[in-house]
Amino acid sequence: MAFKRYIPVESISELTINRLSVYLRCLQQLEHEGTTTISSQELADRFHLNSAQIRKDLAYFGEFGIRGVGYNAAQLREHLVNILGLHEERRVLVVGAGNLGTALSHYSGFNTGGFRIVAILDSDPRKVGKRVPGGLVVESVSDLTRIVKERKVHIAVITVPSNSAQKVYDELVEAGVQAVLNFAAAQLKGHPEVKLKNVDLKIHLELLSFFLTHASRLASVT
Amino acid sequence: MAFKRYIPVESISELTINRLSVYLRCLQQLEHEGTTTISSQELADRFHLNSAQIRKDLAYFGEFGIRGVGYNAAQLREHLVNILGLHEERRVLVVGAGNLGTALSHYSGFNTGGFRIVAILDSDPRKVGKRVPGGLVVESVSDLTRIVKERKVHIAVITVPSNSAQKVYDELVEAGVQAVLNFAAAQLKGHPEVKLKNVDLKIHLELLSFFLTHASRLASVT
Repeated sequence: MAFKRYIPVESISELTINRLSVYLRCLQQLEHEGTTTISSQELADRFHLNSAQIRKDLAYFGEFGIRGVGYNAAQLREHLVNILGLHEERRVLVVGAGNLGTALSHYSGFNTGGFRIVAILDSDPRKVGKRVPGGLVVESVSDLTRIVKERKVHIAVITVPSNSAQKVYDELVEAGVQAVLNFAAAQLKGHPEVKLKNVDLKIHLELLSFFLTHASRLASVT
Repeated sequence: MAFKRYIPVESISELTINRLSVYLRCLQQLEHEGTTTISSQELADRFHLNSAQIRKDLAYFGEFGIRGVGYNAAQLREHLVNILGLHEERRVLVVGAGNLGTALSHYSGFNTGGFRIVAILDSDPRKVGKRVPGGLVVESVSDLTRIVKERKVHIAVITVPSNSAQKVYDELVEAGVQAVLNFAAAQLKGHPEVKLKNVDLKIHLELLSFFLTHASRLASVT
């Protein structure tokens, strides 16, 4: 509730939230190295970030640093954990036990901290009953609603083929899931009360393509 | 070379480049719907973007819009394709034929436009020789250098276990790869002339966690 004082959550962009995750990673590394205090400028220099951006992003959520001294690394890390809600348990369901769904069900990070994969579902009867790496047994997508309710699933990850993604999304919303991470290449019609995040892995290849293009252009004129 | 007039490529952030990919997706959708001209404000409103940010991002690369009229959608799309270097063929190698590597080798987007997966490698002799979905046959990682050179690989994707990632990265650099996308949870010691992008999928779960936390806080006070 402390956050309400500063800015409504709807007006904070996904890019800002993603940067909070990045700052959290940086602080964890600094703490691991024994750093106790750091300024936004030092944080920026060390991790190739923007110090004004860091201050602006954090200012949405309160005043954390001490002017002229900087941030207490452990305190700021704890603030970020709280802001991101990572102190709470988040039960995650994976729908689609293909290669991507199977990979995500034992991806480091998808089963750490508060995140816990509680089930992986598929519609293929040949997959149902099989054990995937990480230890879960694939269950039938026909049990989706029951599993969401019984295991109190918060977040669902969609890794089904794109032509099934909308149907799965609608079932997840109906069953009471509050947030969905969609890896299917489908433009889903979202529900206003359920947070939907589409993941587009191609964007990373395009980033590399950009640097390849411009590095070689620069190289070609030197 | 036209880009050099505006700003050195090193000073353009990854976030800016990622936004260019987002603008490209939006323009493709608009063209698909028959839109021919759009202002930065209309583009922002339609896709929940920031119009000032759009203008700033594009200004790095030239003057594309017509004041008071907006952008020609097809022309701006073509500019973005050129800026991102997507008109060129990019040969991609996947190292690690586990679930994630296998998934990426036939992920929609990793084999579209100019991107072409030319090989998938693994160190496990039980995997070598097996055909993965999409049609490629897994080859031995001991042939990495030869394959990079013979198939003129531009981009490598690392999906090996984290304790092997540095060794694979070093071999890729030595073999002449120019850009690396790393999915392994390992802090790689990078080479200054090889663009390295670490992908952290947990960031997406943290984003959803943020919205779950704040949505329920807001709900609890209404």
